[in-house]
Amino acid sequence: MSFTTRAQVRFADVDPAGIVFYPRYFEMLNCAVEDWFEQDLGVDFKTMHLEHHIGVPTVRLETEFLAPSSLGDRLDITIAPRQLGRTSCALSIEFAGNGVTRLRAQVVLVCMDLHSKRPIAWPETLRTGIERGLPAPIAPAA
Amino acid sequence: MSFTTRAQVRFADVDPAGIVFYPRYFEMLNCAVEDWFEQDLGVDFKTMHLEHHIGVPTVRLETEFLAPSSLGDRLDITIAPRQLGRTSCALSIEFAGNGVTRLRAQVVLVCMDLHSKRPIAWPETLRTGIERGLPAPIAPAA
Amino acid sequence: MSFTTRAQVRFADVDPAGIVFYPRYFEMLNCAVEDWFEQDLGVDFKTMHLEHHIGVPTVRLETEFLAPSSLGDRLDITIAPRQLGRTSCALSIEFAGNGVTRLRAQVVLVCMDLHSKRPIAWPETLRTGIERGLPAPIAPAA
Amino acid sequence: MSFTTRAQVRFADVDPAGIVFYPRYFEMLNCAVEDWFEQDLGVDFKTMHLEHHIGVPTVRLETEFLAPSSLGDRLDITIAPRQLGRTSCALSIEFAGNGVTRLRAQVVLVCMDLHSKRPIAWPETLRTGIERGLPAPIAPAA
Repeated sequence: MSFTTRAQVRFADVDPAGIVFYPRYFEMLNCAVEDWFEQDLGVDFKTMHLEHHIGVPTVRLETEFLAPSSLGDRLDITIAPRQLGRTSCALSIEFAGNGVTRLRAQVVLVCMDLHSKRPIAWPETLRTGIERGLPAPIAPAA
Repeated sequence: MSFTTRAQVRFADVDPAGIVFYPRYFEMLNCAVEDWFEQDLGVDFKTMHLEHHIGVPTVRLETEFLAPSSLGDRLDITIAPRQLGRTSCALSIEFAGNGVTRLRAQVVLVCMDLHSKRPIAWPETLRTGIERGLPAPIAPAA
Repeated sequence: MSFTTRAQVRFADVDPAGIVFYPRYFEMLNCAVEDWFEQDLGVDFKTMHLEHHIGVPTVRLETEFLAPSSLGDRLDITIAPRQLGRTSCALSIEFAGNGVTRLRAQVVLVCMDLHSKRPIAWPETLRTGIERGLPAPIAPAA
Repeated sequence: MSFTTRAQVRFADVDPAGIVFYPRYFEMLNCAVEDWFEQDLGVDFKTMHLEHHIGVPTVRLETEFLAPSSLGDRLDITIAPRQLGRTSCALSIEFAGNGVTRLRAQVVLVCMDLHSKRPIAWPETLRTGIERGLPAPIAPAA
């Protein structure tokens, strides 16, 4: 089960060539991850960072930019967890607009204690939420 | 009649002191102006820039930052046109969240031909839309 | 005595109309203030924020955008303190490139304790540094 | 032969956790590519985009974030071309500061005609410049 949220390509996102300047895609991606935590996993970034002192820095990122996006485009951003480790989580992310995939990204986040700056095990509530989004295991053949 | 739209303070907007880094307020402000043009004046930025070759650069800006905003805050951004010239327009803009005014800005936009890079008279449709939002003239005393 | 530093207009700063998107001027302005603190006032932002727990948020900003800047332009940013209060400081800032003034800004910074989030008196070393840049008082008539 | 340029971690780059917000690394990376084109390949981005109508969008990006960077850090960004195709170019990019590698990226750029929005063969001068930076071919065994 994946999570989908929306973004709109703003004037601030677009370069002199008239298309999204790619670092701005990653700001949108980060907003989508914020939405996922708040709306699907049940913990907003403010509470997580300021009260629980937990951050989720990105440690690995692979992106293919498949088609450009232009000013005003409405984009659907879909987040699907792929793998869940003790302290990390791999996500597949897709941006699409008007039925055209704009980019595909593979992202690895790590659950980090903001005081010690070290990875920690996912808190139970986050672990449960992420697990709910994982692909169903392939059933063993009978 | 003013126009109101919303913004959410994102991780990308917040500085090491935990509050909005002020240049990011102006990105939100520009998004609000985009929303105003599209939803209230009836011309979206893409059409205006790419088909009509008209831009609306900011030529003057005054801002008072009255209270800080934090990660996750939902802000109402209200735009009220104050004065309409042949080629320019003065706006009062307010950001508020949780009943607290965060900033007040006075902005002057100019209607610019993107080819000649010179100010031009507002097209009729924009002029009419902006006029609709102007404060009512003070009635003369009887 | 004013302080001057340089900025270069980067691809990331430029909008679809080919000129600097104005919120990006304020990122450059903030970088110039960082340079001023480090190179002229003798305290870098890292030390000031993380060791002294002092921030210098902008509480007031007035800007006139006089001429556009384009990709690749080299800009001289000049900072001149105008007035020094117990907890605040007013600056005049000018961006110029190729002998043409691009913008003029009047900025008011406040010295803030990052723990209490309240204004505090400028530390002696900052006060002395800012004073050195203030315009000479007008001599009283004989 | 690789090309190295420098960046400084600015207040604008740093998140509430006190470290670089990763989309900002890609703005720095793009600035480094601008420097490489101007200082090493002999064509600045302004001339390339506005006169030659050529852009170099990123079509593929892989990044490992190995160590965080903090406010004030001076980073060396090293660009080494790895492979040169007819219309594309693969780069290895490394950010390092204080002897510690902060991130490693593999980037594929494409040479694009900004009018047709289609890939075109690298112009001779760019091709020659990029070739100069390619790793020496492995000599065949005798």
